Amino acid sequence: MKIYDWHIAPNPRRVHIYLAEKGLHIPLVEVGEGFVLKQDYRDKFPQAMVPLLELDDGTTIGECMAICRYFEALHPDPPLFGTDPMSSAQITCWENRANEEGIMAVGEVFRNTHPEFADRGLPGSAEKIPQNAALVERGKARVNRFFQKIDGQLSNNQFLAGDTYSAADITGLCAVDFGGWIEMGPEDKFGEQFPNVRRWHKEVSSRPSAKA
Amino acid sequence: MKIYDWHIAPNPRRVHIYLAEKGLHIPLVEVGEGFVLKQDYRDKFPQAMVPLLELDDGTTIGECMAICRYFEALHPDPPLFGTDPMSSAQITCWENRANEEGIMAVGEVFRNTHPEFADRGLPGSAEKIPQNAALVERGKARVNRFFQKIDGQLSNNQFLAGDTYSAADITGLCAVDFGGWIEMGPEDKFGEQFPNVRRWHKEVSSRPSAKA
Repeated sequence: MKIYDWHIAPNPRRVHIYLAEKGLHIPLVEVGEGFVLKQDYRDKFPQAMVPLLELDDGTTIGECMAICRYFEALHPDPPLFGTDPMSSAQITCWENRANEEGIMAVGEVFRNTHPEFADRGLPGSAEKIPQNAALVERGKARVNRFFQKIDGQLSNNQFLAGDTYSAADITGLCAVDFGGWIEMGPEDKFGEQFPNVRRWHKEVSSRPSAKA
Repeated sequence: MKIYDWHIAPNPRRVHIYLAEKGLHIPLVEVGEGFVLKQDYRDKFPQAMVPLLELDDGTTIGECMAICRYFEALHPDPPLFGTDPMSSAQITCWENRANEEGIMAVGEVFRNTHPEFADRGLPGSAEKIPQNAALVERGKARVNRFFQKIDGQLSNNQFLAGDTYSAADITGLCAVDFGGWIEMGPEDKFGEQFPNVRRWHKEVSSRPSAKA
């Protein structure tokens, strides 16, 4: 079993932190080379997305949360996707928001500004997709809205989905730290507007898994 | 318990079909009015997204799959999220792709072309987000890539995540039918390129749940 990895990228980091919280050690195969995926990986998996879990029989599981939920089913403790229908639902909800409204929004800004992503405006794409300047402002508005939303949620919850650390916090942490790549992280001037995010960010960042 | 609903929209439809497959009847409260959400709903839930499940004690669960997984935990039969770690992982993976690469891609085209969405380039947004013509071509390329991907998957699988109908097919069906809104559905000329999608679409559309 191994995971094809691009260590610096925010989506693989969701899986690194998850595995560290579980105490699981799965071999990682680095397929990133600076800001691109190696050609032999793209030849083998034309979808060209990471992370990707490959079992010894060649079966693959793509998508961060599909990988994490696979391990959750095999190793339920400590639970990171809830312990009853309601806690699980809240975790699924906030994890999804952190991905769609956080990581994707930052990615929209990053991919449409960083010179290394000229002509790569979308992930996992073989065809050339030009950068789109209008998406930069739109993406920043989305990031701002995401921080507002989670700051509200964290104003009366210790963690993103309630009073227990969960997969929602993992994706949330990856999202707000990714915000730092565009100077919209909790430690940036931008972050000063969101005291609850800062309090939570300090707490979840201090867990050893955050460095995985 | 009730679900705030916008009956014509693709995301609420994911939940309608899911509930019909389960034989569950949850009261739906229509909060759409043509192409906007009613003001009293937006006042009560400023996030302004649907569907939203509200329990009798006022607790809410947002996000389609959080709602569906909540009901899955309460009513496991028939299983729509798998029966073992691997089948569950494949369903999570393909369900997620159908959402991110299918529904979101069609939405990108639709929201940036339809006159009713002028200044509403993003869902759930209070601020004005202008339409962006460059996203129309980009979105069409994404939709095309999504159909290619699922056509490949369906060339050797009866259903999107293997040999059993699942939540992945529900989101997949909503995605490809949403494609019809921009003339990129399975029954459009565009769809002729994807025989496996057409075969699968006919099969999943014939289930009574598809009309829910």
